[in-house]
Amino acid sequence: MKPTRRSFLRGAAAASVGAAAGGAARASSDPAFAEIQPWMQELGDPVDAAPYGMPSEFEAHVQRKTVYWLTADPISSINFTPLHELDGIITPNGLCFERHHSGAAHVDPALHRLMINGLVDRELVFTMEDLMRFPRENHVYFLECAANSGMEWRGSQLNGCQFTHGMIHNVMYTGIPLRLLLAEAGIQTAGKWLLAEGADAAGMTRSIPMEKALDDCLVAFKMNGEALRVEQGYPLRLVVPGWEGNMWVKWLRRLEVGDEPWHHREETSKYTDLLADGKARRFTWEMDAKSVITNPSPQAPLTHGAGPTVLSGLAWSGRGTIPRVDVTLDGGKNWHQARMSGPSLSKSMHRFYFEFDWNGQPLLLQSRAHDSTGYVQPTKNALRELRGTNSIYHNNGIQTWHVKKTGEAENVEVS
Amino acid sequence: MKPTRRSFLRGAAAASVGAAAGGAARASSDPAFAEIQPWMQELGDPVDAAPYGMPSEFEAHVQRKTVYWLTADPISSINFTPLHELDGIITPNGLCFERHHSGAAHVDPALHRLMINGLVDRELVFTMEDLMRFPRENHVYFLECAANSGMEWRGSQLNGCQFTHGMIHNVMYTGIPLRLLLAEAGIQTAGKWLLAEGADAAGMTRSIPMEKALDDCLVAFKMNGEALRVEQGYPLRLVVPGWEGNMWVKWLRRLEVGDEPWHHREETSKYTDLLADGKARRFTWEMDAKSVITNPSPQAPLTHGAGPTVLSGLAWSGRGTIPRVDVTLDGGKNWHQARMSGPSLSKSMHRFYFEFDWNGQPLLLQSRAHDSTGYVQPTKNALRELRGTNSIYHNNGIQTWHVKKTGEAENVEVS
Repeated sequence: MKPTRRSFLRGAAAASVGAAAGGAARASSDPAFAEIQPWMQELGDPVDAAPYGMPSEFEAHVQRKTVYWLTADPISSINFTPLHELDGIITPNGLCFERHHSGAAHVDPALHRLMINGLVDRELVFTMEDLMRFPRENHVYFLECAANSGMEWRGSQLNGCQFTHGMIHNVMYTGIPLRLLLAEAGIQTAGKWLLAEGADAAGMTRSIPMEKALDDCLVAFKMNGEALRVEQGYPLRLVVPGWEGNMWVKWLRRLEVGDEPWHHREETSKYTDLLADGKARRFTWEMDAKSVITNPSPQAPLTHGAGPTVLSGLAWSGRGTIPRVDVTLDGGKNWHQARMSGPSLSKSMHRFYFEFDWNGQPLLLQSRAHDSTGYVQPTKNALRELRGTNSIYHNNGIQTWHVKKTGEAENVEVS
Repeated sequence: MKPTRRSFLRGAAAASVGAAAGGAARASSDPAFAEIQPWMQELGDPVDAAPYGMPSEFEAHVQRKTVYWLTADPISSINFTPLHELDGIITPNGLCFERHHSGAAHVDPALHRLMINGLVDRELVFTMEDLMRFPRENHVYFLECAANSGMEWRGSQLNGCQFTHGMIHNVMYTGIPLRLLLAEAGIQTAGKWLLAEGADAAGMTRSIPMEKALDDCLVAFKMNGEALRVEQGYPLRLVVPGWEGNMWVKWLRRLEVGDEPWHHREETSKYTDLLADGKARRFTWEMDAKSVITNPSPQAPLTHGAGPTVLSGLAWSGRGTIPRVDVTLDGGKNWHQARMSGPSLSKSMHRFYFEFDWNGQPLLLQSRAHDSTGYVQPTKNALRELRGTNSIYHNNGIQTWHVKKTGEAENVEVS
């Protein structure tokens, strides 16, 4: 299936150039190429046009989008990352999905404080300037909402990977290892849990086991090099690598050390998984390995007809790296190993590609991630057998796109 | 010099909390912490507030800036990256330095074409859609202007790392290996050089040896996940990893294969290095290993007084990775190995830190990069001995910041 140079010539390139021998002639007869475009005749923007730059006017359609029926109010809703418009593994800050419980708080960093209290030797309150005196680390991590793909438990609903899988982003965080701040306060022997509290109007709180807090959590203040965005918790957020997004408390103002979890709203009535027998899974923090084909997909159909085609997608695991992704063009009859491209970093998104010659016939596209622990992404039906269809959270089942002869794609399931 | 937990307690944390035993009391008496801030009492922004997000209003000072006396007109000038405001290794797209020769061209991707002509078997013209059918790769690379630090050849001039070292950025590029496109056209035996031409009004051109073109060059269309920015060559730019920035032709419209270099303006009268004896170095493409301390620095003074202090900086090499950076606090009398943090990627920026207890006395800060070939960053004087002081380009000498008792810093040289 790998395209050869010859197949490209017959396919992609030939489509615009015509027969090889006539290439030059075709070049001069291409109206767009032959014409001296206005941008070659006029001076462009001066360098002081934009102290902080924005995307091209031709990219105005590349936007985060919400789904209004999901929640009662856009104050407590989700803006989805347009995964089908992106490539590589870094999510630009302006397009990172957002989810708030009382809207995005505009916090003044000069007035912001972080307190550590509870079962500690010394209760502490840090200003932002205090925190800048602690050692920092840099890591690329994905942040995925536990509810990502949650609308798909009972069947295919949303037509586009932005909406089925776009509650995720992947950026480089700069932050202070949480264990350094906790060591400063001195954790008492009975201190086995940590409550993280946000400074938004929701007073968002989650209980985190001390083992995780002392492992790889960060108190972060930068993303992709610059200050956190307002909607990502400016000026301070918790980073809980590989674990569900709502534990990554934004506008972080307080860390309380305790001897047991707090059983607050977001770990009892929400962010728990109701099973078929009426019992609920709790503290399902870790995000299982998952993947999705971003192109082609319902929002990014094939428009070039048969011939050389690039299939692209993303894979990630809360437990480590993604050494391998398989893809199928026929709903699982035949699987092919995808090509991974870009740095392979633990608890980060990974980019995969599969190049093939499309025969112009319908396709049933799926991807299946393998993580570094040996775990393999399950089918949606395998998940339903285990967990029923009452869940909202932790749906990491294999996604299927049906590509029609026209190149259009839709969200379907194969049994 | 490494801070211990105890030293932090005495220094940073104690500064805000007071004596350890009185921490809780101090916490409740901190007016900013005790007060219920407005953002805890009111709902924040809804999720549809910004389809493409921007930084917090409290970060409005974080800007690219130009230096108006550098060139005759801001149409053909530089906007410098605010390195002192950033952390980690990714430069956010909105803050990437820009340099144009006739302004930033606004190119319509639907009308843009890439031609390959000259000593090829088949002249080819690609639309953007054609290019999307070729295999892609993802790499984090730095792009540094050859003139970065060029104002420092004759002595310290500009007060801030944004201006002395800010003609650089570091992003993840997504692009097509150039060798795949050249193979499609078929390079004739005599084809040893490549001319890359831009679609801006300057018709920017550079000659590139075929060996580099076939090695690691990319024809890129994304940076940090999203489409290239206008000022970075939207919709298409050449990526020439590790080589000087002006070879990374923006708004890329044509690649001509030839048997010798073209000796155009930007490789004869410009981007050559005039030596003391009147001869000029030419084709000095590769960027030598270099580093700079970004914090503290003239635009980012120490404001917290003596005690625990984080020194931070960036290092890079056009030849590979940076396994080691040394820093000195006393102008080179004593050197200490810095701590590297974040992924170590070839031809990418690397972040380093050095944590120390500042005694409140003046400092002479320097950093010295070692690259994976064993090359060590030279002093400015060592460079001047080799190349005189007529050069503009390729100044990778060691930078010195003088930090005063007040914490203010200035650009100086030590002999």
